[in-house]
Amino acid sequence: MYSDLVLAIDREQPLQQQLYRELRQAILRGRLLPNQKIPSTRSLAQSLSISRTTVTLCYEQLLSEGYLEAIVGSGTYVCSQIPDDLLQSDSPMTAESITKRPLQLSQYGAALAETDLGRVPDVEVPFSFRYGRPALDQFPVKLWRKLLSQRCAAADWLDYAVDPLGYFPLREQIAQYLARSRAVQCTPEQVVMTNGSQQALDLILRLLIDAGDAIAMEEPGYPSARQLCSTQGAKIVPVPVDEAGLQVSELPDQMPLKLVHVTPSHQFPTGAILSLPRRLELLAWVQQRGALIIEDDYDSEYRYGERPIPALQGLDQSGSVLYIGTFSKVLFPSLRLGYLVLPQTLVALFEKAKWLCDRQLPFLEQQVLTDFIQGGHLEQHIRRMRSLYDQRRQAIVSALKHHFGNRVTIMGEQAGIHVMVKLQTSLADQEVVERAAQVGVGLMSAQNHYLHPQETGEFIFGYAELTVENIDLGIGRLPQALSIS
Amino acid sequence: MYSDLVLAIDREQPLQQQLYRELRQAILRGRLLPNQKIPSTRSLAQSLSISRTTVTLCYEQLLSEGYLEAIVGSGTYVCSQIPDDLLQSDSPMTAESITKRPLQLSQYGAALAETDLGRVPDVEVPFSFRYGRPALDQFPVKLWRKLLSQRCAAADWLDYAVDPLGYFPLREQIAQYLARSRAVQCTPEQVVMTNGSQQALDLILRLLIDAGDAIAMEEPGYPSARQLCSTQGAKIVPVPVDEAGLQVSELPDQMPLKLVHVTPSHQFPTGAILSLPRRLELLAWVQQRGALIIEDDYDSEYRYGERPIPALQGLDQSGSVLYIGTFSKVLFPSLRLGYLVLPQTLVALFEKAKWLCDRQLPFLEQQVLTDFIQGGHLEQHIRRMRSLYDQRRQAIVSALKHHFGNRVTIMGEQAGIHVMVKLQTSLADQEVVERAAQVGVGLMSAQNHYLHPQETGEFIFGYAELTVENIDLGIGRLPQALSIS
Repeated sequence: MYSDLVLAIDREQPLQQQLYRELRQAILRGRLLPNQKIPSTRSLAQSLSISRTTVTLCYEQLLSEGYLEAIVGSGTYVCSQIPDDLLQSDSPMTAESITKRPLQLSQYGAALAETDLGRVPDVEVPFSFRYGRPALDQFPVKLWRKLLSQRCAAADWLDYAVDPLGYFPLREQIAQYLARSRAVQCTPEQVVMTNGSQQALDLILRLLIDAGDAIAMEEPGYPSARQLCSTQGAKIVPVPVDEAGLQVSELPDQMPLKLVHVTPSHQFPTGAILSLPRRLELLAWVQQRGALIIEDDYDSEYRYGERPIPALQGLDQSGSVLYIGTFSKVLFPSLRLGYLVLPQTLVALFEKAKWLCDRQLPFLEQQVLTDFIQGGHLEQHIRRMRSLYDQRRQAIVSALKHHFGNRVTIMGEQAGIHVMVKLQTSLADQEVVERAAQVGVGLMSAQNHYLHPQETGEFIFGYAELTVENIDLGIGRLPQALSIS
Repeated sequence: MYSDLVLAIDREQPLQQQLYRELRQAILRGRLLPNQKIPSTRSLAQSLSISRTTVTLCYEQLLSEGYLEAIVGSGTYVCSQIPDDLLQSDSPMTAESITKRPLQLSQYGAALAETDLGRVPDVEVPFSFRYGRPALDQFPVKLWRKLLSQRCAAADWLDYAVDPLGYFPLREQIAQYLARSRAVQCTPEQVVMTNGSQQALDLILRLLIDAGDAIAMEEPGYPSARQLCSTQGAKIVPVPVDEAGLQVSELPDQMPLKLVHVTPSHQFPTGAILSLPRRLELLAWVQQRGALIIEDDYDSEYRYGERPIPALQGLDQSGSVLYIGTFSKVLFPSLRLGYLVLPQTLVALFEKAKWLCDRQLPFLEQQVLTDFIQGGHLEQHIRRMRSLYDQRRQAIVSALKHHFGNRVTIMGEQAGIHVMVKLQTSLADQEVVERAAQVGVGLMSAQNHYLHPQETGEFIFGYAELTVENIDLGIGRLPQALSIS
């Protein structure tokens, strides 16, 4: 009955595990059939030259798991209840048939599958003007480590949080910080901690937008925000941007609009600062129509020379603004701590959503960030970075002017950690990026920041990560590479 | 022109900021009107007895922000472009009108607003049999702190991650751990790190389920999973559970079903272990219909006496299983690290989804967990906890038997960190919970674990956090409180 049963036993490995695995495989693959009697523990132990205890333990496990059944006075059998159709020696599903199996996705899943997120692998180049990272080498890691170690030792951070919206003392610190630095008016209760600003935007859209709803977005604008909207089925209404930011007069008057997404502090990517009259106009516009504003203040901390214009949220008296901020650009991206400031009316709903979607954020790092802000280190770090980035900003502006003369227009240099650069060149945008890469200079075309990508001659130059010397060296390589000189 | 302008200046506070705030308020509230001339810096400085520099700096800021405009040869004026309708001294939106403003929610938002998530505030009682937490006082915090400190010092964790699916070495460790402990068969590429198991389930549902799609769920089952499904508009098909887990034969044969959600290792809340024949039957069932299984293995690590039955994922040869695991029950909940093991065909889509929804998880704690697993500490901790929980499990079983005799039925004691208890009592479920609370004993009714809550006489007793002594003391208080003796 089992004379053909070859068990591959490697005597160097734990025997019981191997025996278990082999017997189980034999049952599942149909080499041992339902109701088939299997050897006694004594005879199998003998035939394999292993201890009887090992076989007994293995059988007991297979019995407890239902692969085998013992019949008193008769012996041990392969379980009769194992459905026949799984017991085929050749699996009916080969790797190929699995791959070809059609996926039944949701509308959201299908839209996402069709979406090109534009993620390009980071190519290491000597002069990378990629956008998005602060100067990570400047972050006070030692201080952070000290705070982390202190909080970790307290061991009061292991449990589920009481509040899905985030660690309350941190929300207090953020509310105060925003009041000081951005004239945001809120209580700590209105502050919701999120897994980066990306989750903040995702939560807003899920809770407020159905397929077909219209959202006004800046044109050009932030591709990730647009992707979030479009995968959720929203109808995107592009609104042009000029040197004073979103052209509020171009908002569509006849169309019911649910949301307006803006980056007023430093429009992404043009860098325009939304003027005060436009801010007030925008607030009046949404109020009249019952729409809401998403104010994405992704790098508002860096403004050079002048004090920042108060956030839309602080100018609003109608509860129409959902304010998004993040520590990714101010501290470091892998912290994954962003936040939302909500109108009072929406707080309870977002609390439910956060709880249902992922419960809460990790706790320990929220505590550490609280200490960091409370100790004055956040504002100190921002001041230091503002001064450093100001030097780098001046360096890139003068390098661009020096090397490109009147063939360059620089936009958005009053704030943030990037400038938008329009080059007079006959080269296609992609050609510019490729030629730059060939001489070790990484830069990004503004093309996919438009709803309908087009030739723009516009490029985004992040400068936070480069020294003044490297900025000049990097920009200096471009004119020849681009045949501009 | 400005004789009536009273500025509230507190000489103890920074003057420039106050002056700025007061003037801005005066403009926004209409005390200063568009085109109105404002005092010269000299005269305002004199009238307020402050330095002229302070006034000049303040005016410059208001000029740069567009509140004021300077006309050469004439003076400084309130900007003409500020829309009239925002400049009313009495704000048109009172707190009341904001509150009454109807919210335009999405279908999802509206469904969530209607959903009772059943979150009850944790009441501190001496004997809390609440479910969900491991014994946090047993976690090796010192070791964790050491690993955290080491990784923190390396300072290579600040940047955005290369891979939205998670830190690759951690995914390698998890793939190996799951192969060892759960017979899960996967490559590290198939492992997706999520913000707890809750986000894993949320992602699956978003990507696969549209409103109206049917999902089979265990009855009784895990309320949070059901809430996630129902808020997304899924049609929930309850399938009864017995002592061998989900009754596969009760799955609806005529209805197109997209997903089956199961907790095979330790059914929540009954604690039943899905038998091997049922597992094979379930796999055959979904394969024939092209449905997928969500295998939620939330506390599979704790099984007493016998080796666990291999995960459905490991028995599956058709790519039909999405396996969910978490470190919340094994290490600590605030870590927020769960994971998904996906069929190969779904990996690319989930990578996009994770990137778009929230980019990635915090990086540092993923590194620390990698070291923790690699150093053997995870399995050591599990062994230690399994032995501890085994004692507590035996204590609660014998205490229940001792104090309730034949009026109690205990289910699900072979695994996990809770038992399900059916009491013979004439009291309503809620009454039992309340009377228990009055004598300092916290317990949870199984009522809301049913799709249609009903009187059950069933209660969930978590025992992970209580000492053997307290388990006996706590259970001992119940008979009298419940008038059972």
